[in-house]
Amino acid sequence: MTQPQQKNFESVRMGVDYYPEHWDETLWEEDASLMQKSGVAIVRVGEFAWSRMEPKDGEFDFGWLDRAIDLFGRYGIDVVIGTPTHTPPRWLTTKCPDVLPVMSDGRIFQPGVRGHRCFNSRSLRRYGERLIGKLAERYANHPAVVGWQTDNEFSMLDSQSPQAAEDFRDWVYRKYGTLENLNREWGTVVWSGEYSDWSEVTPPLGGSPYENPSFLLDFARFQWDSVAEFQAWQIAAIRKHCPNHFITHNFHSYPQRLDLYKVGDELDFASFDYYPNTSPGKSGTAPYSGALSLDVTRGIKRKNFWIMEQLSGSPGAWMPMWRMPQPGYIRAYAWQAIARGADTVVHFRWRSANIGAEQFWHGLIDHSNVPGRRLAEFAEMSSEAQRLAPLLAGTTPSASVAILMSHEQLEALRIQKQTENFDYYENIKEYHRTLTKLGIDCDVIDWRQPLDGYRVILAPHLYLLDDEAAERLCRFAADGGTLLLTARSGVKNMNNVCVMRPLPGLLADCAGVTVREYDPLGSDIVRLDTEDGEQFASSQWADILDPNEGGHAEVLARYGGYVFFAGEAAVTRNPFGRGEVYYLGTHPEEDYMRSLLLRIAQERSLPYAEGLPAGVQISVRSGESGSYLFLLNLGREARKFRISGAYTEALQSEGLLSGRRYGNEIELSPYEVEIFRF
Amino acid sequence: MTQPQQKNFESVRMGVDYYPEHWDETLWEEDASLMQKSGVAIVRVGEFAWSRMEPKDGEFDFGWLDRAIDLFGRYGIDVVIGTPTHTPPRWLTTKCPDVLPVMSDGRIFQPGVRGHRCFNSRSLRRYGERLIGKLAERYANHPAVVGWQTDNEFSMLDSQSPQAAEDFRDWVYRKYGTLENLNREWGTVVWSGEYSDWSEVTPPLGGSPYENPSFLLDFARFQWDSVAEFQAWQIAAIRKHCPNHFITHNFHSYPQRLDLYKVGDELDFASFDYYPNTSPGKSGTAPYSGALSLDVTRGIKRKNFWIMEQLSGSPGAWMPMWRMPQPGYIRAYAWQAIARGADTVVHFRWRSANIGAEQFWHGLIDHSNVPGRRLAEFAEMSSEAQRLAPLLAGTTPSASVAILMSHEQLEALRIQKQTENFDYYENIKEYHRTLTKLGIDCDVIDWRQPLDGYRVILAPHLYLLDDEAAERLCRFAADGGTLLLTARSGVKNMNNVCVMRPLPGLLADCAGVTVREYDPLGSDIVRLDTEDGEQFASSQWADILDPNEGGHAEVLARYGGYVFFAGEAAVTRNPFGRGEVYYLGTHPEEDYMRSLLLRIAQERSLPYAEGLPAGVQISVRSGESGSYLFLLNLGREARKFRISGAYTEALQSEGLLSGRRYGNEIELSPYEVEIFRF
Amino acid sequence: MTQPQQKNFESVRMGVDYYPEHWDETLWEEDASLMQKSGVAIVRVGEFAWSRMEPKDGEFDFGWLDRAIDLFGRYGIDVVIGTPTHTPPRWLTTKCPDVLPVMSDGRIFQPGVRGHRCFNSRSLRRYGERLIGKLAERYANHPAVVGWQTDNEFSMLDSQSPQAAEDFRDWVYRKYGTLENLNREWGTVVWSGEYSDWSEVTPPLGGSPYENPSFLLDFARFQWDSVAEFQAWQIAAIRKHCPNHFITHNFHSYPQRLDLYKVGDELDFASFDYYPNTSPGKSGTAPYSGALSLDVTRGIKRKNFWIMEQLSGSPGAWMPMWRMPQPGYIRAYAWQAIARGADTVVHFRWRSANIGAEQFWHGLIDHSNVPGRRLAEFAEMSSEAQRLAPLLAGTTPSASVAILMSHEQLEALRIQKQTENFDYYENIKEYHRTLTKLGIDCDVIDWRQPLDGYRVILAPHLYLLDDEAAERLCRFAADGGTLLLTARSGVKNMNNVCVMRPLPGLLADCAGVTVREYDPLGSDIVRLDTEDGEQFASSQWADILDPNEGGHAEVLARYGGYVFFAGEAAVTRNPFGRGEVYYLGTHPEEDYMRSLLLRIAQERSLPYAEGLPAGVQISVRSGESGSYLFLLNLGREARKFRISGAYTEALQSEGLLSGRRYGNEIELSPYEVEIFRF
Repeated sequence: MTQPQQKNFESVRMGVDYYPEHWDETLWEEDASLMQKSGVAIVRVGEFAWSRMEPKDGEFDFGWLDRAIDLFGRYGIDVVIGTPTHTPPRWLTTKCPDVLPVMSDGRIFQPGVRGHRCFNSRSLRRYGERLIGKLAERYANHPAVVGWQTDNEFSMLDSQSPQAAEDFRDWVYRKYGTLENLNREWGTVVWSGEYSDWSEVTPPLGGSPYENPSFLLDFARFQWDSVAEFQAWQIAAIRKHCPNHFITHNFHSYPQRLDLYKVGDELDFASFDYYPNTSPGKSGTAPYSGALSLDVTRGIKRKNFWIMEQLSGSPGAWMPMWRMPQPGYIRAYAWQAIARGADTVVHFRWRSANIGAEQFWHGLIDHSNVPGRRLAEFAEMSSEAQRLAPLLAGTTPSASVAILMSHEQLEALRIQKQTENFDYYENIKEYHRTLTKLGIDCDVIDWRQPLDGYRVILAPHLYLLDDEAAERLCRFAADGGTLLLTARSGVKNMNNVCVMRPLPGLLADCAGVTVREYDPLGSDIVRLDTEDGEQFASSQWADILDPNEGGHAEVLARYGGYVFFAGEAAVTRNPFGRGEVYYLGTHPEEDYMRSLLLRIAQERSLPYAEGLPAGVQISVRSGESGSYLFLLNLGREARKFRISGAYTEALQSEGLLSGRRYGNEIELSPYEVEIFRF
Repeated sequence: MTQPQQKNFESVRMGVDYYPEHWDETLWEEDASLMQKSGVAIVRVGEFAWSRMEPKDGEFDFGWLDRAIDLFGRYGIDVVIGTPTHTPPRWLTTKCPDVLPVMSDGRIFQPGVRGHRCFNSRSLRRYGERLIGKLAERYANHPAVVGWQTDNEFSMLDSQSPQAAEDFRDWVYRKYGTLENLNREWGTVVWSGEYSDWSEVTPPLGGSPYENPSFLLDFARFQWDSVAEFQAWQIAAIRKHCPNHFITHNFHSYPQRLDLYKVGDELDFASFDYYPNTSPGKSGTAPYSGALSLDVTRGIKRKNFWIMEQLSGSPGAWMPMWRMPQPGYIRAYAWQAIARGADTVVHFRWRSANIGAEQFWHGLIDHSNVPGRRLAEFAEMSSEAQRLAPLLAGTTPSASVAILMSHEQLEALRIQKQTENFDYYENIKEYHRTLTKLGIDCDVIDWRQPLDGYRVILAPHLYLLDDEAAERLCRFAADGGTLLLTARSGVKNMNNVCVMRPLPGLLADCAGVTVREYDPLGSDIVRLDTEDGEQFASSQWADILDPNEGGHAEVLARYGGYVFFAGEAAVTRNPFGRGEVYYLGTHPEEDYMRSLLLRIAQERSLPYAEGLPAGVQISVRSGESGSYLFLLNLGREARKFRISGAYTEALQSEGLLSGRRYGNEIELSPYEVEIFRF
Repeated sequence: MTQPQQKNFESVRMGVDYYPEHWDETLWEEDASLMQKSGVAIVRVGEFAWSRMEPKDGEFDFGWLDRAIDLFGRYGIDVVIGTPTHTPPRWLTTKCPDVLPVMSDGRIFQPGVRGHRCFNSRSLRRYGERLIGKLAERYANHPAVVGWQTDNEFSMLDSQSPQAAEDFRDWVYRKYGTLENLNREWGTVVWSGEYSDWSEVTPPLGGSPYENPSFLLDFARFQWDSVAEFQAWQIAAIRKHCPNHFITHNFHSYPQRLDLYKVGDELDFASFDYYPNTSPGKSGTAPYSGALSLDVTRGIKRKNFWIMEQLSGSPGAWMPMWRMPQPGYIRAYAWQAIARGADTVVHFRWRSANIGAEQFWHGLIDHSNVPGRRLAEFAEMSSEAQRLAPLLAGTTPSASVAILMSHEQLEALRIQKQTENFDYYENIKEYHRTLTKLGIDCDVIDWRQPLDGYRVILAPHLYLLDDEAAERLCRFAADGGTLLLTARSGVKNMNNVCVMRPLPGLLADCAGVTVREYDPLGSDIVRLDTEDGEQFASSQWADILDPNEGGHAEVLARYGGYVFFAGEAAVTRNPFGRGEVYYLGTHPEEDYMRSLLLRIAQERSLPYAEGLPAGVQISVRSGESGSYLFLLNLGREARKFRISGAYTEALQSEGLLSGRRYGNEIELSPYEVEIFRF
């Protein structure tokens, strides 16, 4: 079964993360055998093991890795190898201190934990290429090895090392060419910040968050390019020897300041490390922010993805331990991942570590090595996944709605926080949660992607804008799409400079409205009065809108209450070409968003489901083999409910997991999962 | 109208801050023209523009500034030039790194924001004098230029640069002469802190707040002198060429640790940057802390002042954006400034910046450059100010009450916080607010000033004391004044060393009471029982008072409740010479202070007004042209009320702004302002 | 009376801390005379006075100290000398910068406050030995000098100085011998942390709390040894000259990360600096955490101890001032110290300092030098203590219950916090408080101590365990003792590595139960259902317990409510040999602990007292002269109550302090103290 074929990574399978070097070799075979019995089809190894692969400069030892990979091969388990650049060994950081990042306060990011590697370090590249080259060469034709993971969980470090500083200066020079351009585009004249010599261009020394916002945004972009380049040389080193292996990276913890799309560009597919919060106090939001994370990951490459690390027990290391997952939790969240486009799901980790700082980041098996409840649940899940894999093969979620996500907006709005509780990603979370509660499948994609095929686009807070992006959005609406814009759109050009035109700037035409003035509400609440006489609460921001003269924008909601702009337009809809553009001048509470998005769903014939209780989610994978409806109770409570909308018929079929048929009234026990074919 | 006369700065006029270098020169004329139409009579320029005035070492470019100033001159607008030393350019900090402050943790205060200049830097002085000299020479006789602002918003940096360290050592040497004196006066014997060599005298390395308090207080004093000297060489450079121009500085954000009086000493008048808080949540306190800031500013030179930056829109840069000022807010707060002694009010800024870190510190015009509500309100205000200016010329507030303010107390009580919620300036705020709510005009003056002409002096927390200050206060009371003292008076000598005598130390005689012992209440509450059987709450501190034997101190309030000192004296009044001394051994709630201050007002025939609703303020400017009563509703609510007390008659006259006559029951809409002549 | 005898430190006496060098010498005699009248029998001097003893390198001046000690001798007051190594003088830190600690961020711990001495500094040792040698030689035979205090209030500094780094490397080398051993025992393979050269072994640079936990624990142990060695050379220097003087150290502020037992090892007895919290808000817990601190101190050497600094007034320096102690407070807490095994009680300090940073850490006399209420209370206490001293001589608390305390557990559980509100020492506080509320005297001893003589051992959270410790505990139970174990026992070996065996690891046999799995509850609450049908709340942690097959463990309480492990065993009791082992798989609320401990007290015939109101404590000192029952009301409220249990008879005797006889219903005024002989 595991003869490697060309980049085969699209089947639904279960795996585990395993660190052979952490365990006495006498345990390995027993572990592999139990893995096999538990349905493990994939193992990830190698990540972090530089000091074992190359104990001293140029002295390589792959014997242990050979034996481990051979062993997995014998048990029919495929292997993914992680490149160990996340953890340069001590001999390397001693010999080449330029490997270490320099933090914004000038202190060195010391070894001792992990992630102590400056993406711009030339030594790291030299030593890293050598090691990865040897690894790739060695395992290129190993029958058990199917692919690679680069580094681990990239994130931005704001390194100010001399090399990072020099690279940044070059980056700026390549972008702007002359100091005149640079000073003009960044507006450095403010506070006498003008550069009179290229040598004065440095990273943000001291790390003040109040430096020039144009400069800070470019420093972020430079880092995105640095990480991408850091990964690119790794990918080149692997591809040279292993053209048939896939290459992925395990993204984590959204939102990342890092631009996922830039880093994802050269990957075969994206992976995600998925640790939904087990706290009862988070049970109202965790299933939804998890759903968003999965949709974001799917959007990186706009196709199915892997989970490279999936919750297997209570995490605890960088924080005190979380609650232990309840029975059913591990399985339900693995199914959620698959429902939203994960193919292979790799659980972190096989057994809880007995050594090191992540001892209490629990694996499927406890330190005692006595297999227990969690491994049994994993094995049940594996068996189900194995049974359904042929059906799910080639299926993928497909949505008619997309939310546009932009790391440039995220970063620019982080640099200049608009109001106290205004948060770009939290707002995206709210929109996405509202859609999820309505059972509306949704893509989350890079705002630079083509919009063909979508009926509805939510484009929140396009704060930075250029002609190209504005035109694409307007064309989408003109061509028949429904476009939803919000406050803080079109405020700036791409260099983080405010534009001298009425808001929403380049989008004012298609929105059909102009912002007369605004009030940064912060945490204060204003009333929203709809055309139907309903009242809602709203906060964060209030654009006071004037429908453009001679246009056709209709006002859907106005401000109410005691504000000076009571009676003014807050939410509008503008017919535009063959489509329409909604403009939300404020951030309404979820109930309002729900009614607005339901209206749009109905008008635009999107599949939706009314009646989903809290924590219960629906999503669909489709392909040549048919369509599969996943019904997941991701909550701690049993639920009894009726659904109206698109899926009534599908829910009448026999459940693929239980073989049960559900009536009109569906009952789900806590963490129960069902799958229907339709 | 704008032909400069000798240091003419005393007329009521409106202005704006403008940064020509931030805008394309094609916009300038349109801006100047619109300014003229909007009533702008003053423009401040130049501040921060070093990199434009001197793009490279010794290469000066004043052409753009000439053109801007000429333009304003053509439109009849007077110009104030700010010296740009707040923002040394990059070429200078690169060439002379000693320009940069060194923070208490040893890190350099890097360029990239602003304020990156060590007051003790010799390079900065050398380059600064050269530039300011050229500026002053160039514009000395320009008909549009009327005065200068030094640097910008001085504050203490605690710089530990080598030069600051050396200057501090010299300062200490000059003050104490010998190590024996120094060790004795600072009490360095504690913890073996004795200096055995002058080289051991350094700034507070590491910045621990628990170093010797005598040393820390002197380090603050040294900094005050350093800032004053930093300004002194600027003033000398200007005065040399421009004897007819005025020189001011824009103070900000009280309380400053910086001694305002020391820095204000050589100025022609003081200025203030006034940004009252627009948050609805602050509407109960912002009008009062604003009133205090204005009175503090007037007290710096004991005469009228300017507002050099006045709120024009929502601020936002160092924090998320505030609420946008409501209609009427900008005008009302500008009138409040004038009511309390501002002559010229300069609004910050003409148009919101499109570049740099203060993009969202909104000006009168938004980024769009479409004139809107706020500019219209400014123009209305300008027109009113222009109309009343001849009447208000030469008028100034004059009070019979003064609060003594001391930066030495402020700093000493910061170094050793007495109890959890004991705060010197917050307590002054409370006293001042109580007076303001009673319509009692009040000066706030340096505690070293002569007290002639006042009937009542509030002297809170004279924690540090010397014979001269104690004698001045006692003489004031003996000569017929009412002196109000509080707990934590006379605790220390001026070197921050506790005195070995019963509290309130040098004031025990005039207070007529002695502190038997005390209880630092912190946030705990005790009951206060008055002579009239009323009960109040009190906190922060409890001095247990013994009336001096053979004296005449009467007890006005005693502690009640379950404390061990229940029944003991808390508040006393001592007849002293021809006057009287009140002693508050505790910090009572506002209601008690109100009744006490009302009693004093009645006994000492101070003008007061009972019946003012929350947010409504009264103040008076008088001069040869008459007396003018300002009635300001600084709140978000309309108010209807009757006033009894001093101003009944004045309020019957015709309102100078509206031409209305108000009856006995006054009605004010939100942010309404009226002025009465009497 | 004060002729020094061999290490006489066991009589009950009162003393004060006095800094002659802080005061004009003209005050000394008056002070000594008033001390004598107030019953002062002991004075501590010298601590911190290095700069006066050796003003310059090698220039010694003991004249002032001679005069002070002579004076006290003349007034019949014994003297304890503190070594001044806590405060190296400026000339020394200037000459030998290696004296200064280096903090984890690489910055130097600068002089200016105190404690600026690296325990590993060789210069400090060289200069310290020289000074202490001279001191010891000079005062060895002075009739007034009876003993020494080393340094002051040791605590851990995590110094990363070059010498500390080198010493740590040596320490590691001596412990592990080879890099192979080191890498294996610390599990450095995780994250490529393997050492390839000894030079790579450093302190935790950067101070990340997430470094390898085995490494971090050893770095703590290294520091414990460093402090012990730092003290050892001081002790050797003193003992060489003063074989008849005692040597002690003043421990403070529990829990200290520092291992008290290691540092206490070479002392003649332990001392403690006792500052019970005066805040009314702390009155519910302060008397109990104080009782624990006293019991901990007694446990250091398992014998009576001194208080070297006792609360004399409101403290305030490192924090704003606390409330002033109420009348009776100072006396009551001094008696509490004696009741729990203090002999001499030295009050800090004679008079409040007029200079330096601790001016508001109040002494018995205020800055005014007017003797007041607090000195009078001290004098009353002194007179009582003097009267009862002959009776109390040779008496000491003796308990049948001990709580095991382990700094290794404390540190390991600090390095890896288990759950949000799981705190090792706070849990010990709760157990101890429950015992104290039941009037059960309790020792708190090093977990490595022999357990002979105890009937009940509480051994909470023996997270790290080795065979020797496990065997000692099992033997204690097997031999007839009652052993109480808790969750998080036996998790790791002594190198902070998780063991691969079912929990509670090496204690599973004697506990008779195995942990099937666990849920880290954190702040969440679960229900506990007892065998008797009662319900309690529990939190922090939930071990799901399986009684061992074929064993006799009985289940005392099970989990209830909505958790997935409802019905599973939570608390068990296992008969073991002639004794029994309780296992608490969770952290129950105090009411449950009370019922469990009461049951144990009754079954094991421990003396206990039911009916003690909040704040009222009982403890017993016994010796050849009889047994003395201390009854202390440490609360702000008067109390009326009846006691049942062990002490009914004793309470019928005549109170030794008041001469009163109390009936069955006892009435105590606030802070009242009584002593009964039985």
